[in-house]
Parts: sequence; structure tokens; C-alpha cells
Amino acid sequence: MQQIEFDNQSYLIDGKPIYLISGEFHYFRVPKCDWKHRMELFKAAGGNCLATYIPWLVHETEEGNIVFGGTDEDGTRDLEGFLQAAQECGLYVIARPGPYQYSELKYGGLPSWLCENYPEIGAMKLDGSRINHASVSYLHPLFLEKVVRWFAVVCPILAKFTVTSGGPIAFTQFDNELMGFHLWFYGPDYNPVTMGFGREDGRYPLFLRNRYGSIDHLNEAYGTDFADFASALPTELTDDARPELIRRRKDYFDFYYASVAEFAVLLCREMRAHGIDTPFVHNSANPNMNAFFKEMAEELGGDFLLGSDHYYNLGQHWDQNNPTPQYAIKVFYSNEMLRLMGYPPSIFELPSGSCSDWPPILPEDSLACYMTNLALGMKGHNYYIFTGGPNPPGAGLTTDLYDFGAPIGTNNEIRPLYYVQKEYNDFVLHNEWLVRAERAGDFRIAIDFEHARSDKYWKAAGDFSYTNDQAWEFTLKGVMTTAFCASLSPVMIDLDLEDWVADITTPLFVAASLSMGADNQRRLVDFVKSGGKLIIAPVLPEYDEALRPCRILADFLGAKPAIRHQLPVTRATVCGVVNVSKERIFHQDVPHGAEQLGVEEFTGLPLSWSKRFGEGEAIWLGMEWWHSMREQELLLEALLQRLGLRRLVQSSTPQVWTSLRTDGARSMLFLMNLHSSPVTVESKVSKADGSWLSLGERTLAAMKVETIELAHDVVFGTGM
Amino acid sequence: MQQIEFDNQSYLIDGKPIYLISGEFHYFRVPKCDWKHRMELFKAAGGNCLATYIPWLVHETEEGNIVFGGTDEDGTRDLEGFLQAAQECGLYVIARPGPYQYSELKYGGLPSWLCENYPEIGAMKLDGSRINHASVSYLHPLFLEKVVRWFAVVCPILAKFTVTSGGPIAFTQFDNELMGFHLWFYGPDYNPVTMGFGREDGRYPLFLRNRYGSIDHLNEAYGTDFADFASALPTELTDDARPELIRRRKDYFDFYYASVAEFAVLLCREMRAHGIDTPFVHNSANPNMNAFFKEMAEELGGDFLLGSDHYYNLGQHWDQNNPTPQYAIKVFYSNEMLRLMGYPPSIFELPSGSCSDWPPILPEDSLACYMTNLALGMKGHNYYIFTGGPNPPGAGLTTDLYDFGAPIGTNNEIRPLYYVQKEYNDFVLHNEWLVRAERAGDFRIAIDFEHARSDKYWKAAGDFSYTNDQAWEFTLKGVMTTAFCASLSPVMIDLDLEDWVADITTPLFVAASLSMGADNQRRLVDFVKSGGKLIIAPVLPEYDEALRPCRILADFLGAKPAIRHQLPVTRATVCGVVNVSKERIFHQDVPHGAEQLGVEEFTGLPLSWSKRFGEGEAIWLGMEWWHSMREQELLLEALLQRLGLRRLVQSSTPQVWTSLRTDGARSMLFLMNLHSSPVTVESKVSKADGSWLSLGERTLAAMKVETIELAHDVVFGTGM
Repeated sequence: MQQIEFDNQSYLIDGKPIYLISGEFHYFRVPKCDWKHRMELFKAAGGNCLATYIPWLVHETEEGNIVFGGTDEDGTRDLEGFLQAAQECGLYVIARPGPYQYSELKYGGLPSWLCENYPEIGAMKLDGSRINHASVSYLHPLFLEKVVRWFAVVCPILAKFTVTSGGPIAFTQFDNELMGFHLWFYGPDYNPVTMGFGREDGRYPLFLRNRYGSIDHLNEAYGTDFADFASALPTELTDDARPELIRRRKDYFDFYYASVAEFAVLLCREMRAHGIDTPFVHNSANPNMNAFFKEMAEELGGDFLLGSDHYYNLGQHWDQNNPTPQYAIKVFYSNEMLRLMGYPPSIFELPSGSCSDWPPILPEDSLACYMTNLALGMKGHNYYIFTGGPNPPGAGLTTDLYDFGAPIGTNNEIRPLYYVQKEYNDFVLHNEWLVRAERAGDFRIAIDFEHARSDKYWKAAGDFSYTNDQAWEFTLKGVMTTAFCASLSPVMIDLDLEDWVADITTPLFVAASLSMGADNQRRLVDFVKSGGKLIIAPVLPEYDEALRPCRILADFLGAKPAIRHQLPVTRATVCGVVNVSKERIFHQDVPHGAEQLGVEEFTGLPLSWSKRFGEGEAIWLGMEWWHSMREQELLLEALLQRLGLRRLVQSSTPQVWTSLRTDGARSMLFLMNLHSSPVTVESKVSKADGSWLSLGERTLAAMKVETIELAHDVVFGTGM
Repeated sequence: MQQIEFDNQSYLIDGKPIYLISGEFHYFRVPKCDWKHRMELFKAAGGNCLATYIPWLVHETEEGNIVFGGTDEDGTRDLEGFLQAAQECGLYVIARPGPYQYSELKYGGLPSWLCENYPEIGAMKLDGSRINHASVSYLHPLFLEKVVRWFAVVCPILAKFTVTSGGPIAFTQFDNELMGFHLWFYGPDYNPVTMGFGREDGRYPLFLRNRYGSIDHLNEAYGTDFADFASALPTELTDDARPELIRRRKDYFDFYYASVAEFAVLLCREMRAHGIDTPFVHNSANPNMNAFFKEMAEELGGDFLLGSDHYYNLGQHWDQNNPTPQYAIKVFYSNEMLRLMGYPPSIFELPSGSCSDWPPILPEDSLACYMTNLALGMKGHNYYIFTGGPNPPGAGLTTDLYDFGAPIGTNNEIRPLYYVQKEYNDFVLHNEWLVRAERAGDFRIAIDFEHARSDKYWKAAGDFSYTNDQAWEFTLKGVMTTAFCASLSPVMIDLDLEDWVADITTPLFVAASLSMGADNQRRLVDFVKSGGKLIIAPVLPEYDEALRPCRILADFLGAKPAIRHQLPVTRATVCGVVNVSKERIFHQDVPHGAEQLGVEEFTGLPLSWSKRFGEGEAIWLGMEWWHSMREQELLLEALLQRLGLRRLVQSSTPQVWTSLRTDGARSMLFLMNLHSSPVTVESKVSKADGSWLSLGERTLAAMKVETIELAHDVVFGTGM
């Protein structure tokens, strides 16, 4: 087998782009006698890779006695036998040796003796109590010592089976859903030993020293009077919104993310030392967490690939039972984040059943889920799970049988989900050009990764008129949702990068908070100066990334601070769209040289203006919205049209969302009906000459994604 | 037209049971020239009644100048013309003269001058600030003075058009969704003038005097040292879970609900004084709020009917886009609450479109919604809205056109939703016997109305191992959801009533908190003593309704207090069901004479036992669950089977929920697929002789409710 490589667009084998179709398959749950049979079934359905956890819990039930091998008849500990079987079936393997796994195992797959006998390694709350018995402090020296011993046994086995050694292991994943077991149950880890509180050479004091240089600078930034870095302890995650407290809490999160990256580096180094030469992968537990991995991506560089998990329901705690448009929004921004981080968007846990029997995960919904992920950029995935079986005795957290409603049942029965996956796999394998295709866009939406990292350290607005978290919600539930309903074709850019600044072909929408990095503000100024068309809403930044006053963009625009409207009843009319529905609104004097575009009717206060800078133009819109009304579609269109929008797609109903993907030669339009009722839609695609190509009328069943491949001579207008 | 009457089972005309099919139709939005045409369309679709707000805002734009009549060409203020038109079309009318309405009108339909010029009438927070500019303090003397003036004009008009006066008005609704505009934005109203804080003859001090008799008793109950009732101010809605503070907060809510009932009594008295002789109706804003109207129901007696509003989505803030099984749970307990309060379950706002264009309300989903409501007990409804139109200038809160995606569009276009409603209306009119049918049950679930009233005054558990709110969640998301998935047929009983105590035909499941009314505890004892079969989980009450120590039930059972399990990992096996999934678990010594039924396996601690009392039996189950796993179905069945369950229905999949309704002669089985994928189901019904009648296999489309009418000779086993 040849090594699987990847670039920023797709996986490749021997330079040929391929789609990765992996299936989770646990040798410790599936009886050994069924391995080959089920692997062949997976291959027959189009799969090319398997993934498995290697649970520490199962292999070291007593401390110091690590057991691997075929001694159990059912193969519970026979990792080598499993890797051998995969290789014989011609399937690649993604190996996941932990240390932590979850997988609904007791203590998340960590040994009981570790969690019970060594409480000091636990991830801790600020008050020193443990977050959860299965939450460990990643960099605690004693935990690392135990991990090193575990890796010293498991890694050499894996090293024997990597692709370069003639085996099937194409990728190795360190840990699993890092940070989830801290943040879901509490917040970041404050284990004092790990973080080195109170020690000048402690991890956190060193981080602060690196950031502030001197304790005086830190005290100035925090409004404190610490004697030294050792005593500059973190503060509670309160709602207090004074800049110095937001800054202090943000510092701790920056530190925490960096410490998790340090852990990842240690794990990778250890694995390399034992001869594992595959690229490393890791999965963010959900789209909201992707942004927490920026430090790790930088530390690990090109030998690492971050993917995400895209569940839509795992129990009654979830909002939606099926992959709805709200799910599609998550899929879209998650895939776009991964793309912008330089990875082919990979979904390492794509729902294939659920750890809960109810609400049920249904085959038709699953197919809609897969096709939606594909439509919005997925370049490879791992079905979680392809098949299950009984948990090793005492190891199951929920029930004793880990069935998951998987495509292949625990008695080898083939369920309808199997045929649905085969249908999807066949589709991607027959359209493998799609892995080099990208989404065609007619306007851009900015993503500020910091917006997605802020909800825990900047919860409440306080005196701030608009927070990062609010801007992030506006991006997703406002402009992005409105755009899909209006059959516009947004693509995302990362404000932290330079790559978008020189591209002035399509307008850019920025949902801004009062805080934006100084460099990002400068980039927006450069963009407009070079002829770029910008819409910024609902405020203009007044602070930089560290909450220090910074008005680079506002000064360039000649704008005063935006003021939050205080009237209980307001009526907003912008660009001819009357009484458009909004959440918060802001007003501001129209800057010198700008043209007023909108007004709050009861007060006559201006709430939108436009100002030109040569070919460039900036529109400020003092209005936030969550998509709910047709008027919001009209407003977004009106603003973009003013800025030269050349629309790529038309869909006759907001019920059907679209995604146009092209590799430059071949193109495909995805039509998504993510509602529980059928719908008839007429769709059109814009040609380069500005005329519309009608794709006719179609009736889509409930929860149905359909595709239309366009003739080779159709070339689109702009924004490609 | 003849008066519409109602008893505790259905609406009646001249003694004949009928189904009320009303449609919301706003004369102030629909142009006058379209009234008759659209009314005829409604009638052609099977409707027999219209409902309309009469917005104070529209009729008294300037204080003191109340305008009614046909002066506007569009009929915006022509109430009489509208009532005349309805009468000519043979349609009844539900008149809703406010004073408050909402209906997405500015200030909820209250005049701007009222909300802007008289801030003292506002509902207030504990700190004296206004809750919201549209939230009024119902009993504020100045507000009542203005209401009396408004009613003095509007009520005589309505009185001329009641059915007994030869007009169409069958019901009059006072106000709308009472309490919603307080509780959604803050909590109960603390307007000091209204509530009489600080005055011995104030409303709240009098309430306290009535409850405690002397200030010493109050101080003893609160742990305070108030000099008199006047100074016994309410306290903040904190998380503090000390009994004396829960008690004090609960007192304020009891007082608040009573004050709203007092307001309702005043409004009704005023309307009666002006000659309105119809029964009065009111709509609870949602199922969660039904329990807040117990005092009102008692005050108003038989001349009053409470209904509820059953939306499933009105915007992105809602959890689900379509009527899912979770929605069915809400419908079920809401209808059961209304039935237990003595009313034919009426849904005064049954979704017919939405105030948001997105997420869309789709015709197929709507039909599933209507049929689900019918399957679970609805006896009459009002489509909100049947048709809309432009808001009167400046009166619209969201957009200028109040279209709502209604069945009849604002240009008289007939939308698919119209035909769906016709289909539903035809169904109920052709099966009008269903209005005298009730749900056949094979076991009972207790409802303690106080559980549904507690979330605001008893938010956190504190030292309490189990709160009212947790017991309520367990009821809905645990046992009730499991029961429907297992195709069991639960019906609900009201613990506060006596009617269920002597009925020992089916087992009773009680989800209990640490608090239960002393009378209710006594009833449970009497029930078991008379041979009743009881399951109580996850704790036994240790306090009465006022949080005073009270162990009537526990002492009868000879049980010690249940102790919350503290192990991080637990494994529960009960009645042979191994490792059943649970949330919180409790253990307790097995009382003398009881048989142990379940154990936590790691510790060996007992978590379930059963004790017999003659024919009666009580099972304690120290386990809470939210439905997620098949094992939970098995556990519920095993417990009920032990208590003599005679199951009424079998459905071959948890995806299809059932409801069997019978009037004793005719019977119908409803099969509900409230998922977005189709499903094939085999269903069976139990006959009196214990054999099963197979109803064959059916494939239900996504979001489809189907019915099977049973042959007349099928008689069911038990529980009727």
C-alpha cells in the first residue's frame, strides 16, 4: 500500500487526488471471527480505510501489566491481528492510541487505576477540585510519565504496521477531541502543578513573562499590583466585562490552548521516537471548537491534519433530530475553517448511527447529512461507527452492547444505513474530481477566529456595545443564514491571513465586535484602498485583539463610535427595504464624504452609510439580525448589489439551499432540501456572459440533497 | 346561531358534541373588500368560527379618542362591519378585546400613549425598573382605570353581537397569553404600588397575612424577624436552596398567580357589566405555562375555559424546525393538563404559518402537527392565522406586512396550507365522534402541577437531592418519552385530585421530588392500601408542599431517605435489565418486608425494591433517566409487567408512536411518524380476551400521522 498524502485541497495517493472513506471499527468490540467478513462488507461498499481506538483501559487493566496479543478468543486485545486483517483486506488504518479516547468507555478509555489512584493528575477547577474523574491534566508530569510507558508499548506495535513498513497504518491520531472533557464539564484546566502557579519557572508564569516582558507591564494591563509573575494567578470566569478582566481571562485561554498544543507536540515526538512515521491527525469535537486548535496547527505544521466531528444528534440534549439547515450552517463554517487552516476538510466522526438509540438516526437523514457535508466542502471522512459489538466486560459507560445503530449490526446483520453509505460512497468515487473542486462564491464573509474562542472569557457585554460572541452569532445566524436562504454563494475568508486582501473581485461582509486585531483592521483598510468593497456591521472596532484602544479602521473611515439604540420600539429602513426586522441596532453620525443609506424612522437617526475610496467602497450597517424574514434577504441583496454583486445561482425558494462546486473544468450544483417536507424548486446558474442557464424545475423529497452536473462549457461570472 | 356550550369533554351545540374549527382573521389587517371572500373560503374548508383581536392600539391612537366604525375604506376600525360579515357567513366569533394582545403589534397592541406617558403602570423588576415597555402591571389602579374606559367603549359593541343577542360572538377572551410578557423578559411583576409593598392593607401583605395569620408564624417560616406584614418584602430569585428561601420565593409566585387571577376576575366582571354574556376563554402561551392558571380556573369556575398555544417553531430561537416527537410530548401533557382541569383541550393558537418567514412552516409538517394534537386529545382549535394583511401604519412590530405564510395570502392567493387544513377539517368533521372519545390507557403517569410551577422559584438543587423541576423533566423526558417509544399507552392523573385514588385498574408511575403535598402523599398511601400498584422514582418525598418536613408516604413504606450516589461511574441492573442507562441514581436500604429489585453493581448498593400491602404494591426505583436507550423501554415494561400491565397496543418500532382513542363504541388508533424519514411499522391492538388483533404492516411517509378505525366489536382489555 502506498502512503496517503494530503495538500490543502485533498488527500492524494501517488499524486492522484482521492477521497478518503474511512469507517470506525473497534477490534476490542467486534468479535475476531467477524473481522474479515465485516471488513469485506465495508470494502464492498466503497470504503478504503478503517479507524480504531486502542483503549489504554482495555490493554492495561492492572497498572504495569500491559497486554497485547491474541490470547483472547474474541480478539479484544489482538491489535496486531486486527492490523494484519485490515492489510489483507487492502484497507488503510487510522490508529488512535489515545491516551484518552472517550468512545463511551468508562473513564473515557483511561485505565481505572489511573483515574482512581492518582487524583493529582486530574484536570482541576480554579478552586483545586477535580473537573471530572475522567478529565486529566494533559501536561501533569505524573500523567505524562504514565503515558510515556503506555506509548512505549503501543507505539512500537503501530510502527511495525505503518505504510512505509509495509503495513496499513496511514495516519496516527493522538488523543481524541482534546479539551472536550475539560470545557464541557467546567472550563479550562487549572491544575496548579501542571500550570506551575506560584513558581517563577512555572508554565503559566513563563507564558505571562513571554507576553508582558515585565511584571510592571502585566500590572498595567491587568490593573493589578502583583509582585512577580509567580503570583499573577488566573481569575475566575465571571461576567465582569471590564477590559482588564476580559484581557486577563483571554490570556488564560490563550495559555490553555497553547498548553494543549504543547501536549500534542510531546505526544507526536514520543510517537516519532518509537518509529511511527505517518502524518498525525486529530479531531476537534465539534465545529465550535475548531478555532481552539490554531496554536496546535502552528506548532505541528505540515505533518499534521486537523479534522472535525459533525454530529447532528446524539441524544435528547441536542437541539435538532435531523440534519437541518441549522446543521448545514455548522458544517459550512466548520469546513471553511478547516480549509482556511490549510487542510482538506475531513470529518473524522461523520454520524453513522448514534450512541443513543433515541432519537433515532435514520438512513435518509444520514444520506442528506453526508451529501450536505460534501456540498459544503468535505474531502474525506470517517463513519463513526461502521460496526460495533459488546463492550469488554466492565468497560462500557452506557449499556453493555455498543450497537450504535451502525450499518452492520452486532449479529452481522446488514441494516438500511449500509446501503445508504454505499450509495454515498459510490457517488463520491464516481465523482472523485470533486475533491479538487472548490465552492464558487459571489461574495465573501469574514471569519475572525477569535470570535469563536471568546464565549468563555467574554460572556457578557457589560459596557461593551457588542462582543465577539455576538458578532459570531450574527455571522452564523444572521448574514450566513440569510445568504443561503437568498441563494447567494458565500465563501469565507480568515481575517488573520493576507491572502484575501488583494482579491477585490467580490464584496466582503464583516460582522465586527468592538474588538478586532490591529493587523486585521489594517488589512481591511488596505482592502478598501485597493478597490475592495466592504460591508461592516453592526459596529466598528474600537479596540485591538488585547482590548487596547485601537481605531485604525474607524479613523480611516472617519467614523465616530456607533451608539446602541435605546428606544424600545424601532423601525429600520435601509437601501429601500422598509421596516426590516433586526435584533440590536446602532446609530452613528454620517462621516464626512459618506452617503446615508439607512435610517431609524421614529428618531430619524442614521443607521447606515457608504463611503467611497477610489474604486473601493465601505458600507457601515448599524444593524444586527438573526435570519427570520424575507426583508433580510432583500436587504443583503440590495447592499451587495450596490457593491457590484454578480450572483452565481438562483433558487426559487429559500427552502432549497445551494452550493456550486467547480474544479475549473467540471462543475456541480448541489440542491439541499433539509426540511421534513418535499419542495419544488427552479434553479438557475449564471454564465460568464451574464445570462442565466435554467436548470429546470425539480421536486425534492423531504431531507433530500440532489446534484446537477453542469455541461463542461458553462463558465461562471466572477468570484472564482 | 345557537350558543356553543362545553363540558369537560367537548364543545356542544344544542347538546350535540361538535368540534370547534376556528381561524384567526384580523379585520384591522385584512382589507374590508376581501372579508367576505376569505370568510367563505374558510367556511368552504370546514371552518365554523373566526377569532380576532380588537387592538386598543388601533382604536385609541390618541388618549381619549376611541374610534370604531367604518370611516376607513379598508375597514381597519370597522369591528361592527366585521362581526356583521361573520354573521352573514354563518361563522361564530371569538372576540379578543385585550387589553393586551401581542399579535406582533407595537407595545403588544397597547396604545403608545399608555406605555410611553404612564411609566408607573409598567410591570417592574424587584429593583423598581420596568421589565419591558410593553409589560404592564395588571392590577395597577391607573392601568385598570384606562382599561375600564377602553372596555366601556368596546364591550357594549361586543355585547350587541353575542349569540344570545342574535350575533356571532360565542366566546370572549380576556387579555392574551397572560404573564408571558413578564416571565419571558424577567420574572413576576414587582410593581410596588400594585403589589402594595410596605402597606399593611397592600395586596401582598394581605396575601401573607391570609397565609400565615401572624407575623410570628411568617418569621418562623422564613427565618426572618420582620416587624409586620408590610415590611415582609419579597426576595430575589436566587439559586439559594435553603427551604425557608424556597418557601418565601414560592409564596411570591403563589401570590403572583393569584393576582393574575384577580385581574381576570376584574376583566370578566367588567365585561359582564357591559352585557357580554358569553363564556370567557383565555389562552396559556405554551404548555409549560398551563399550570400557572390553576388559581384563575378556580376563581372563574364553570363559565371559563382555558386553552393553550401549541407552536412548534416561530423562529431560530426554537429548538426544532418541525413537529417532532419532543413536540408531541408537549402536546400530550398540555392536553392532559387541560383535560384534568376540566376543559375540552382547546388549542387557541394552532400553528397556521409563523410570524417568521424562516425557518419555514411547511404544509406537510402542519398536517402532522394537527393530527398529533388530535391524536393526543385536542377537541377544538383556532388556526393562528387563517389570513393576514398589512399592519395598520406604524403598528407592526416586525415587518409592515403581516403575511405569516397563512393559508390565504395577502393577495387572496390560496396556498397549499389551505388544502392541508381542509383535509384536516374534513377528517374531524367526518369523525366528529372523536370529540367524545378519550385516550385508552394501560398505565398512568402522575402530574404534580407544582412541578411545572417551580423552575423559577426553585432553580438549583442545593442540599436537596431532587427538585420539583428535575422531577418534571424526568416525567417528560424520561418515563413519558420511554413509554411512547415502547408503544405503551400512558394517561395522566392530577395528584391534587381525588378521582384516581379508587381506580386500581392500572399501575401508576410517580416521578417525585423531595417535596410533595401532604394530601397527595396521603392519597398515594390510600391508593396502595386499596390495592393500587405504584412505582415511585427516584426519591421519596421528605417535605410537604411548603417545604416543611413530611414523611407520610415514606413512613408508610417504612423507608429511609434515599441517598444520592456519589461514585463517578455506576452500573445499574434492575428487574433483570442489565446496565440500564440512567442520569442520577440513588440508593436506600431495603425496608423491612420489601424485596430488592435492583442494585448498583460496583458497590452492591440497593437501588430498587418492592413492597406489598395486601393487593397493593409499591415499587421504589432510585433511578432517573432521560430516554435514550432501548434498555429503558425494557426496564419500564418489566416494572409495569410486575404490577400486572395489560398492554393495549404494540408498535414494531419506537419511531412510530401510538394513541388509541375510544368513545366506548367506536375506536381509532393513531400512528405517528414524527421523523423526517419514512418508516414501516406493524401494529397490534389488545382485545378483551387478551389476544392480539394485528392491524398489518404500513409504511408511513416522513412526518405522517395515519389512523386506523377499529371494527365496532373490538373491545380493549383494561384501563378504560
